[in-house]
Amino acid sequence: MTGRVYLDYNATAPLRPEAREAMIAAMDVLGNPSSVHSEGRAAKAVVDKARGQVARLMGCYPDDLVFTGSATEAAALAIPEFATVSGSEVEHDAVAAWINHPDWDVDKNGKLTGTFRGQPLTESIWDDLVAVQAANSETGVLQNTMPIAQSLWALKRDVKILVDGVQAIGKIPFSTDRSGADYLMASAHKIGGPKGIGALYVKRGLSTAPRIPGGGQEMGRRSGTENIVGIAGFGAAAEAAARDLKDGVWDRVAKLRNILEKAIEAASKHTILVGKGADRLPNTTCFITPGWKGETQVMVMDLAGFAISAGSACSSGKVKSSRVLKAMGYDDTEAASAIRVSLGPQTTEDDVLRFAETWLKAEQKFHAKAA
Amino acid sequence: MTGRVYLDYNATAPLRPEAREAMIAAMDVLGNPSSVHSEGRAAKAVVDKARGQVARLMGCYPDDLVFTGSATEAAALAIPEFATVSGSEVEHDAVAAWINHPDWDVDKNGKLTGTFRGQPLTESIWDDLVAVQAANSETGVLQNTMPIAQSLWALKRDVKILVDGVQAIGKIPFSTDRSGADYLMASAHKIGGPKGIGALYVKRGLSTAPRIPGGGQEMGRRSGTENIVGIAGFGAAAEAAARDLKDGVWDRVAKLRNILEKAIEAASKHTILVGKGADRLPNTTCFITPGWKGETQVMVMDLAGFAISAGSACSSGKVKSSRVLKAMGYDDTEAASAIRVSLGPQTTEDDVLRFAETWLKAEQKFHAKAA
Repeated sequence: MTGRVYLDYNATAPLRPEAREAMIAAMDVLGNPSSVHSEGRAAKAVVDKARGQVARLMGCYPDDLVFTGSATEAAALAIPEFATVSGSEVEHDAVAAWINHPDWDVDKNGKLTGTFRGQPLTESIWDDLVAVQAANSETGVLQNTMPIAQSLWALKRDVKILVDGVQAIGKIPFSTDRSGADYLMASAHKIGGPKGIGALYVKRGLSTAPRIPGGGQEMGRRSGTENIVGIAGFGAAAEAAARDLKDGVWDRVAKLRNILEKAIEAASKHTILVGKGADRLPNTTCFITPGWKGETQVMVMDLAGFAISAGSACSSGKVKSSRVLKAMGYDDTEAASAIRVSLGPQTTEDDVLRFAETWLKAEQKFHAKAA
Repeated sequence: MTGRVYLDYNATAPLRPEAREAMIAAMDVLGNPSSVHSEGRAAKAVVDKARGQVARLMGCYPDDLVFTGSATEAAALAIPEFATVSGSEVEHDAVAAWINHPDWDVDKNGKLTGTFRGQPLTESIWDDLVAVQAANSETGVLQNTMPIAQSLWALKRDVKILVDGVQAIGKIPFSTDRSGADYLMASAHKIGGPKGIGALYVKRGLSTAPRIPGGGQEMGRRSGTENIVGIAGFGAAAEAAARDLKDGVWDRVAKLRNILEKAIEAASKHTILVGKGADRLPNTTCFITPGWKGETQVMVMDLAGFAISAGSACSSGKVKSSRVLKAMGYDDTEAASAIRVSLGPQTTEDDVLRFAETWLKAEQKFHAKAA
């Protein structure tokens, strides 16, 4: 697709060359990692190497990681351990699907306020597990997960914290052991690794009953022959992502995001930039043009050569009004009129300027028609 | 590993060139299949194409297939639907882990006898789900799954049948709709696809509660961003496997397996060929040399340049005496003294003859020492 501009990194990032290379090399690794012969040991070495690479990016020990088929599976491995689970409405579907009490309040930026259904914390309203997202996929807004965990532990010592690190890891400095996480989900394809591979961090001393029992792979925590090619790609992508972070690549991305937001703000009086006052991921912008459906915007921009997403996409290809934005206080119309533009290391200033120009033209057209 | 001979196809098969090519092509497919823009639709097309390819090999409708991270996950998706599950001791760990009543009897070849704890069938001893393996991974012995299913249905109309098709699919003509399966597990890496991708067939009209909920992928049956690269490889491998079957490639493999067995039988009076009287996979031979530990044989042959496996391998790299062989009536010593040699389309007559020669020398040495 020549000439297309991809601005949907939060949905999935392009495969990094390093990941591609590691995956192709892993295709020649013939053995099953469970086999004791040379070919088997070579396959096991691929898994071990990648586990180290991912652990280094995440700031944890290799043995604390379980490779899964997705971050969604990581959630499904950690959460069923707990009888009752609470969180807020800004969690991703993979976590929200498990939440019994989605009643932690969030402010207009989607940040936890520390209250539950408008009430201050009391032990009586607490669940066994509390889910706290490190960064929101739709808005990029960051939660300070450690202080939240600490305030919970201060009141109920044995409450466990699940951190969804999917969007944060690789885009901002992130250290699992400083996140407050007892369990943490990560995904390869958000950092330039392959789709269909994720990881669950499990804090030392905590157990997870295997949801997929069998041959006992992943130290008995997740059976099934390992996805060698995917795991190799995850490892290489993690190493490259760590290098990018160190090299300040995302500072440049943040500048481009800010250029884009300035262009939109300057030219469109109707448009609301979501979460702009809050700490956000460097690459994400979400904006609402009330009345102009997000899904229409996505299609208009797709035809014009730009890949972006509406506030929330589900697998059927249909777009609903965003649960996240509604939780932040936006009304139904506003929550259905949002788009997310998410940049990455390969994004150029020209991409961003062309996007702004094209989108603003389409927006004028929309308002001309609506008038 | 130049000069090495790989005879462990039942553990994992080398990646087919067609799968490799499809996987590399899929690496350039940038989008998330859940995204509505062009890039997303292109990714969805990769999944759809592969689903059709796998369905054709398996003899079912594409929509009846759920892609999973392994056949082990396929079992874990189907089975928890049922309160009580029965089967025999010859099932793979991925199924055995779920069986409440592993009490279906098997004969000396590991084939179901149709009795349960020595008693003929009565409704009272039945479970909701019965697991029946199409082909055993250790011995290659085939079960005639349809007649078993029919005899069960005749007595209890709503009993459901789970067929483990992992070793049979791609090696023998196999049609899901003639297998009697209500649920059926398949694995890509056993047919020359990548490791870490499997599928569950679910008969029309049956439901499976999602074990991994979230974004609603796989028609709500298994959430998480799809493993595009793995799925593409599975599809291409399935197409190639179907072609091999049609071309009679496995008849040649069966001839090589028979050459190997004749050579062993002719020269070793101590060795028992397991399941030789039964219908078997064309590529598998399992033989017992009582007193010579399977795990020792694997190591000796590994050093000599051959990759084979002991009766049963678990992920820790340790080898136990085979549960399957014990169920077939072999004693502890015998069940710990088995090796499995499994051939594939790339195996040559020279591979097989060299293996036989090397193994027989080692066996003479073992008996000389033991004497």
